[in-house]
Amino acid sequence: MINGVITLLTDFGTRDAYVGVMKGVMLGICPSARFVDLTHEVPPQAVLVGALVLRSSVEHFPPGAIHLAIVDPGVGSSRRAVAVVTERAIFVGPDNGLLYPAATRLGIVEVRRLEREEYLIHPVSQTFHGRDLFAPVAAHLASGVSPQDLGPVQPELEPLPVPEPWLEGGELRGEVIYADHFGNLITNISVGALVGFPRRGLSVSIGQMRISEIVPAYASVPEGSPLAIIGSWNLLEIAVRNGNAAERLGASTGSAVVVRAG
Amino acid sequence: MINGVITLLTDFGTRDAYVGVMKGVMLGICPSARFVDLTHEVPPQAVLVGALVLRSSVEHFPPGAIHLAIVDPGVGSSRRAVAVVTERAIFVGPDNGLLYPAATRLGIVEVRRLEREEYLIHPVSQTFHGRDLFAPVAAHLASGVSPQDLGPVQPELEPLPVPEPWLEGGELRGEVIYADHFGNLITNISVGALVGFPRRGLSVSIGQMRISEIVPAYASVPEGSPLAIIGSWNLLEIAVRNGNAAERLGASTGSAVVVRAG
Amino acid sequence: MINGVITLLTDFGTRDAYVGVMKGVMLGICPSARFVDLTHEVPPQAVLVGALVLRSSVEHFPPGAIHLAIVDPGVGSSRRAVAVVTERAIFVGPDNGLLYPAATRLGIVEVRRLEREEYLIHPVSQTFHGRDLFAPVAAHLASGVSPQDLGPVQPELEPLPVPEPWLEGGELRGEVIYADHFGNLITNISVGALVGFPRRGLSVSIGQMRISEIVPAYASVPEGSPLAIIGSWNLLEIAVRNGNAAERLGASTGSAVVVRAG
Repeated sequence: MINGVITLLTDFGTRDAYVGVMKGVMLGICPSARFVDLTHEVPPQAVLVGALVLRSSVEHFPPGAIHLAIVDPGVGSSRRAVAVVTERAIFVGPDNGLLYPAATRLGIVEVRRLEREEYLIHPVSQTFHGRDLFAPVAAHLASGVSPQDLGPVQPELEPLPVPEPWLEGGELRGEVIYADHFGNLITNISVGALVGFPRRGLSVSIGQMRISEIVPAYASVPEGSPLAIIGSWNLLEIAVRNGNAAERLGASTGSAVVVRAG
Repeated sequence: MINGVITLLTDFGTRDAYVGVMKGVMLGICPSARFVDLTHEVPPQAVLVGALVLRSSVEHFPPGAIHLAIVDPGVGSSRRAVAVVTERAIFVGPDNGLLYPAATRLGIVEVRRLEREEYLIHPVSQTFHGRDLFAPVAAHLASGVSPQDLGPVQPELEPLPVPEPWLEGGELRGEVIYADHFGNLITNISVGALVGFPRRGLSVSIGQMRISEIVPAYASVPEGSPLAIIGSWNLLEIAVRNGNAAERLGASTGSAVVVRAG
Repeated sequence: MINGVITLLTDFGTRDAYVGVMKGVMLGICPSARFVDLTHEVPPQAVLVGALVLRSSVEHFPPGAIHLAIVDPGVGSSRRAVAVVTERAIFVGPDNGLLYPAATRLGIVEVRRLEREEYLIHPVSQTFHGRDLFAPVAAHLASGVSPQDLGPVQPELEPLPVPEPWLEGGELRGEVIYADHFGNLITNISVGALVGFPRRGLSVSIGQMRISEIVPAYASVPEGSPLAIIGSWNLLEIAVRNGNAAERLGASTGSAVVVRAG
């Protein structure tokens, strides 16, 4: 099942060599491992941001990938370290909700605690589990170690509440959950939630801005115009054509978005 | 001819996982692909900047590389998606001028439109052709698909006007086309354009600064001094030894540069 | 001995394609090379910062890696270009102190000057030795060329003074040598230097802040509290739990740190 691909998502940044060091550790255990960086620019300790970016990414990888994800404000505390086996991939990281949305999307098969000493680097630093615990386990998995060998089953993965939109008086009320590099505002409103709303002749409101249809492409509107679109996360997105919606609309994560028919 | 190396140049930034997702898609199609990131920090929608960085890079790769380049303000519009076969490499990206300077430098053999549905990921998002169209095509090329199979020939590639220097009254008048990470100011004045000008006893003017020779190395001048040099792009470059010329001279892309004899 | 892994540490940034171009050159010489980026965000010309990050990283790579490191304010001057053979790895870079702390830690076996023209790319640019000199040599080493073939032995590597702590009146006086992405303040005080000081009932002072013990984990203190810990560099580190110590304490590289018993 394993294909030797290990993805990495962290809040470590790229200024220090922490990510490179983890890759060095992994190459020592699994010389054939191949790495794909998802991002290392999750804001420090921002578990929800990391969880959403991870969820948006993993279905685009071939089956058999290992997803190493570390945003870990509780490093050195009693939070568990886990591997999550899903139908398509294995996740490795802290059990603090970070893995939950992505693993749930791929279908959780079982959760294992990382408690077998032989798969860790000793002494295990209490400040850098990425290097001494998570990376070694990911590399052992990539080299064929069975998840069953990593430690005991844990009945459940720590859940992470992702804000969901709700219907109220015929209005769908959601919020911005992520603003990307281009300033596009990704909401928590899925295509499914929009069933029952027409693509044209509705209104999408954010702050003072009211957008009157969901267009098929950025290029459907003139340069500089705001628009609503189903974006690449398969969620309703507010953008400005060739502009920055976050700056233009003064909106960001948490900003309310309301969809009304007519 | 293909060597499995795929380079990537985009304006996607590294904060989101868009680049990682493209690599995931490509590994699903061509598991042996190897990726080299050129940069993902082209300013959003800055086609000319991306085109110049791409042109400066591709001749340093071994023959058989695939260069995937995406700076695509027209995604979802009628702009074409193309593969450009050159004598040394294949380019994949939007036909908006981005590929033109680099492909021209390597010698264009033919241009193909990317219209064969079987090489795309369906449904093709109208907001992220990188993931659903360009990356899959690049990966299919890397795994041996012939460019001839991608779609019909397109007679010409969309050109991109790169500003050229000109002679006027014995003066060579050019401009800064790129300011790099170190603040070095790369001009559009090539070694060829400087034939007829002496290396010493000329003047290179930018803003209020006048530099009186072209030196062989940064180390030819004292620390903190401005200098003119033929840089690594093989173009005339204005720098400050171990300093930042862009900041020091208040210059940037578009700043006029004049070369005079004597 | 060589395992085909080439690490890269530079001050080139990631906005330009300079790093990608070096990888292109290396793939042309050693198609099987695998790259691990340590960092490219060493501040421009900051040799000491680069040296410390390199030293903190290399022991975590498997034996046989090649470490290509370039922070090179003297490019084009008379500074030497060298390969440093150690018991565990080979370093390639300028002989300006950058390689010294890391190579010393791994045990220097011999130093070779990079003077064999056949291993360089011609013409060798005087502004980008990374591309034309260091990267080609690293790739030739990765493909099996013996260090003895690169050029004559150089008796000694240029040393780099790394500030050391000292004992004065029973106090251990050190300083911050690196502030990382999280704002953690890494000092020059090693575990060895702390022998004789109790873990509890001592004081660690930085600026106006006085911390009264060395804790085993960030999670040993409440959120937002400052703490002293032996960090992942195996050095005394001042941090704020889930906060930014550099900002909170107004401290940075060079800030004095004093350890007192009781």
